[in-house]
Amino acid sequence: MKIKNYFAITLVLICAVVAKAQEAPKLNLMPVPASVKFQPQERLAVDANFRVATRGHSDARLQAGIFRFVRRLEGRTVLTLAPGLAPDDQTTPLIINCQGPGKDIPSVSENESYRIDITRRQAMLTAPTVVGALRGLETLLQLLDADRNGYFFPGVQIDDQPRFPWRGLLIDVARHFETIEVLKRNLDAMAAVKLNVLHWHLTEDQGFRVESKKFPKLHQLGSDGNYYTQEQVKDIIAYARERGIRVVPEFDIPGHSTSWLVGHPELGSAPGPYTIERRPGIFEPALDPTREEVYKFLDTFLGEMAALFPDDYLHIGGDENEGKQWDRNPAIQEYMKKKGIKDNHALQAYFNTRLLKILQKHGKKMIGWDEILQPELPKDVVIHSWRGTAALAEAAKKGYDGILSNGYYIDLIQPASQHYISDPLPAGSTLTPEEAKHVLGGEATMWAEWVTPETIDSRIWPRTAAIAERLWSPQSVNDIPDMYRRLAVISLQLEELGLTHKRNQEMMLRRLVRNEDIGPLRTLVSVIEPVKEYRRYQVRPQTMLSPLTGVVDATLPDSDTARRFSWMVREFLNDGPRYQLYRAELNEMLADWQTSAASLAPMIDRSPALKEIKPLAQNLSQLGATGQEAISYLKLGMPPPREWRETSLAKVEEASKPYGALEFVVIGALKQLVNAAADTGRK
Amino acid sequence: MKIKNYFAITLVLICAVVAKAQEAPKLNLMPVPASVKFQPQERLAVDANFRVATRGHSDARLQAGIFRFVRRLEGRTVLTLAPGLAPDDQTTPLIINCQGPGKDIPSVSENESYRIDITRRQAMLTAPTVVGALRGLETLLQLLDADRNGYFFPGVQIDDQPRFPWRGLLIDVARHFETIEVLKRNLDAMAAVKLNVLHWHLTEDQGFRVESKKFPKLHQLGSDGNYYTQEQVKDIIAYARERGIRVVPEFDIPGHSTSWLVGHPELGSAPGPYTIERRPGIFEPALDPTREEVYKFLDTFLGEMAALFPDDYLHIGGDENEGKQWDRNPAIQEYMKKKGIKDNHALQAYFNTRLLKILQKHGKKMIGWDEILQPELPKDVVIHSWRGTAALAEAAKKGYDGILSNGYYIDLIQPASQHYISDPLPAGSTLTPEEAKHVLGGEATMWAEWVTPETIDSRIWPRTAAIAERLWSPQSVNDIPDMYRRLAVISLQLEELGLTHKRNQEMMLRRLVRNEDIGPLRTLVSVIEPVKEYRRYQVRPQTMLSPLTGVVDATLPDSDTARRFSWMVREFLNDGPRYQLYRAELNEMLADWQTSAASLAPMIDRSPALKEIKPLAQNLSQLGATGQEAISYLKLGMPPPREWRETSLAKVEEASKPYGALEFVVIGALKQLVNAAADTGRK
Repeated sequence: MKIKNYFAITLVLICAVVAKAQEAPKLNLMPVPASVKFQPQERLAVDANFRVATRGHSDARLQAGIFRFVRRLEGRTVLTLAPGLAPDDQTTPLIINCQGPGKDIPSVSENESYRIDITRRQAMLTAPTVVGALRGLETLLQLLDADRNGYFFPGVQIDDQPRFPWRGLLIDVARHFETIEVLKRNLDAMAAVKLNVLHWHLTEDQGFRVESKKFPKLHQLGSDGNYYTQEQVKDIIAYARERGIRVVPEFDIPGHSTSWLVGHPELGSAPGPYTIERRPGIFEPALDPTREEVYKFLDTFLGEMAALFPDDYLHIGGDENEGKQWDRNPAIQEYMKKKGIKDNHALQAYFNTRLLKILQKHGKKMIGWDEILQPELPKDVVIHSWRGTAALAEAAKKGYDGILSNGYYIDLIQPASQHYISDPLPAGSTLTPEEAKHVLGGEATMWAEWVTPETIDSRIWPRTAAIAERLWSPQSVNDIPDMYRRLAVISLQLEELGLTHKRNQEMMLRRLVRNEDIGPLRTLVSVIEPVKEYRRYQVRPQTMLSPLTGVVDATLPDSDTARRFSWMVREFLNDGPRYQLYRAELNEMLADWQTSAASLAPMIDRSPALKEIKPLAQNLSQLGATGQEAISYLKLGMPPPREWRETSLAKVEEASKPYGALEFVVIGALKQLVNAAADTGRK
Repeated sequence: MKIKNYFAITLVLICAVVAKAQEAPKLNLMPVPASVKFQPQERLAVDANFRVATRGHSDARLQAGIFRFVRRLEGRTVLTLAPGLAPDDQTTPLIINCQGPGKDIPSVSENESYRIDITRRQAMLTAPTVVGALRGLETLLQLLDADRNGYFFPGVQIDDQPRFPWRGLLIDVARHFETIEVLKRNLDAMAAVKLNVLHWHLTEDQGFRVESKKFPKLHQLGSDGNYYTQEQVKDIIAYARERGIRVVPEFDIPGHSTSWLVGHPELGSAPGPYTIERRPGIFEPALDPTREEVYKFLDTFLGEMAALFPDDYLHIGGDENEGKQWDRNPAIQEYMKKKGIKDNHALQAYFNTRLLKILQKHGKKMIGWDEILQPELPKDVVIHSWRGTAALAEAAKKGYDGILSNGYYIDLIQPASQHYISDPLPAGSTLTPEEAKHVLGGEATMWAEWVTPETIDSRIWPRTAAIAERLWSPQSVNDIPDMYRRLAVISLQLEELGLTHKRNQEMMLRRLVRNEDIGPLRTLVSVIEPVKEYRRYQVRPQTMLSPLTGVVDATLPDSDTARRFSWMVREFLNDGPRYQLYRAELNEMLADWQTSAASLAPMIDRSPALKEIKPLAQNLSQLGATGQEAISYLKLGMPPPREWRETSLAKVEEASKPYGALEFVVIGALKQLVNAAADTGRK
């Protein structure tokens, strides 16, 4: 499912994004809990005597969660803690009081609430379920702080529960395959920010990624050998369950199904043969909804999958079938005429109705993308909206449950701030409280055209933590600078779970440069980003088999450096006519751009893979020089020559062109500098 | 097996270690091939048309190897190459002419030779076996070069084969468990430097790491749940075979066997009960060699393992059994008296003789550590020497095959240069050619007291590549500066295989510092190393359950920065009385030490885990100041005050003390500076 008419949010959100040094120290919790009360006189030491006891319910899942908690605590503090649980008494630093196991299979109706109370004597974590306790343990790990007296948990009282019960991350493993290792570390990261649904997008035109024992040709011929065995699927489901995470599989039909047809062309609406699709995009192959054999096949296959995946829900996709194969197939046309099916929408609705019965037979609730919403659809179907909150509200008014992904398309390389303001139930919502309950939550979507195991973490994290907060925290939590402050802390903590979103970048740069001296390239990539939305393929086409090892792949979304640069420029300009604040830092950065650009030239000559960024290196130098000129005029308080504004803005504009599917994200700030300098002494 | 009387090599080898800039460009091959001829007019372009064809024998293993080769070529060049094999014709850039499959199961008698011939028209890789072809493909990847005209293979003729047939890496997965992922990426790295034996040290006092279906209590009670299933073992063996690597399992008995006895105390020489050992060291528990049930058990267990592991050899350890349990057991003493077994050595020899028969019954050749060599031992046993080349030569003279690990103990944190000069057949060897054939090769040993999946790569790589070269390349290849030059290149290439030896360091520093600002700590750790040999545990005791996330774990062996510093100091001193060469660089470094030390103080206050390095930070500043003083005196050509030498040397000496199991490795160079300055004008 891809957004076709992407709603371009033009509201620029690069406001004050760096916490001022003089502010009081703050907690680094993400998502922010529903309620936090400070007990400033209290703090609980975390030293070599730190131990954990359970009270009330205890089981293997809780104990495994406590074990992981203690290992991470040890990892950060380098303390060797006593193994095993302590007795429940007044000297045990942390008591976990869990009232029951919760649902056996993670469920959308799980109670995830918890309470934390920390005094100097003891910390108490209380939860009605094991999943609630696991959520609380993650909060505790985020609370860990330190000063010269040692590590400690600050004195707080936290009462917490999620705003929405469905908080997901979709991982598309079809366009590019992701290893079990990748999935596991991302499940760990999801748990760290309290996401609770892994939406496993298992089939696509470009790959069929799950073993079917009933129809082995599906994975044997549809996957290039890159699929999950059923044992591995069970392993992932168990791993997710241990962390209170549901696993919702998606089998996208009737469109997006080329890989199914490689082994089973008889299911298609055209005779075939079919081969695995290697390009990105929307393709014609679709299952034939008019033949009984297709339903018989789906009954058997989905029955097999329904038994493999214990979650209540099964996602059937249903998106972006343009029906071109249907239009061209006389038998399908004949069938529609005979049955009085007036168009392809109605035909797909017919298909979905049949599919729904199959899923119900196998005990599953159906979920699908917006397109499945048709008048005759029963109310126990969930709508997954890529179209937006209006579509979601409309469905809710009709009585359908729904989840939002519009605004959470992390593959589009937008900043976290933009995702952060997308709300499944926006402030102006006209839904009644009863209707609003149908809005279950949302999912970040990691579509995988341009990610590999080497890069996927950096496309998911840390931005998805901001989405996780939107879905968990109260609606009133919406301070973007504070979000970025906390995101930076959480991003580092995710590294302890094995996430590679930070550490792989320098490795990729070393490979490109072919030695250790990556400084100049690092400077360049710190102020550029991959082009947004779906422009990458347009300007730099590759296939699903291409190496994703270029500069565009090593460059991160949502540049911290650019955000800081833009913020310093604003502070500097607000400091006029003195123009002192951050001037030294800005000049240093701009000078570094110029020296880095000079160093890049011979590096590009030695590394042909860097050739595509040669114009960017030149523009980096140009932007540095222009910025320095502007600052210099502002500092002197002297107007530049008349033509300077125009030529300088033209240079900056010229530098805004993308090369290698990369673009500068400091253009706006530089234009502000130029315009301010050009206005000097002319007001 | 641990070296008890470690032979301290005092020969300082920090000679000229950085290639001079004015030298002609050199190939970056490691190990250096047996023969390389340059064809300077020739070079083969690697562009989007690059393709591979096979000639002669082809099979799935070869094709998988070619596929991996092409993926890595694409990864480095960011080129999308046509998938699949090309036709064998004159326009195909690379022809792989393989004459046969080689051994079905990787074998010590495999022919690993290959020939490469590169002209402007075509590259030809010829090999008698698939394994030879795989070795040649790794050489090709190391040959890849680039300039502004693009990527290319230089014109060379290479004729290559290994000096020794047994070139191994021992990975101890018992003291700390290592995941399948860790093993696979290390197998990839081994293949990259032409190592061909994974010695899998599976059992120890601290853990029993392989599933036994015959005796499940072994892994169930002996592993904390951290063991390999037999399916995973098969997966690793298949993965290794794909890369032409043998897998030799080790089951270390009769000593080092505490973890066996947790589930099977009846095998022990004392009644038990036993618990998994958590400390490092040598422990008393040992199998009882006097009871028939023990041999019956071993027959069944080793029979199961012999079927699981297809390699010709099975390693039975046999080391470091001090026999204390035997001494105290009256039944054992009685048995010895009755049988005329005069001491524990003889008893262990008796045990080994029985063991040998069991292994022979199951079709395996026995290999064990030095201790197994007893007069009555048959000649078809392989001696694995931790004692040294003399022991190995002695065994060879008696007709025993042997391999060397003395000198290759990479857990001792010695520099690569020291391992590099250890030769299984040293220059002065008195063995006849026939006897010398008994010296099969050697193995680097990654004993795992102080490594986890997060750090193990940095303890193995890149130093093990130097050992790999010693075991493959001609004896005459022994230029240490050139080794280091190539090692730096190979180290970067290993990263593309997923190795984390470089990328994990900054993550670990970020975790310790608790934010992104790791610069000052990075400066400190660049000039310190973990203490050598077995001193870490003595000065900073931990258990096998402790977190290995401290500064000592984040600090790398064989500091590049220290080596470069020492080299610059020598060049600077040799440049006297001018004292110009590298003076600016040295002063910059020494100044950086002082500013970094100042920045570290508040960081240590915020991060209690850093407290243990506080004295190192102070000493870093002191060393920086002393170095600058010395340079200043030398530059001025004026003698310092009389007492200056003594007080300065005392300061430097004071700074040589280890803290946090870390020590400065620039002490020698600083003393040289001080002494030279003190001598100024006094000659």
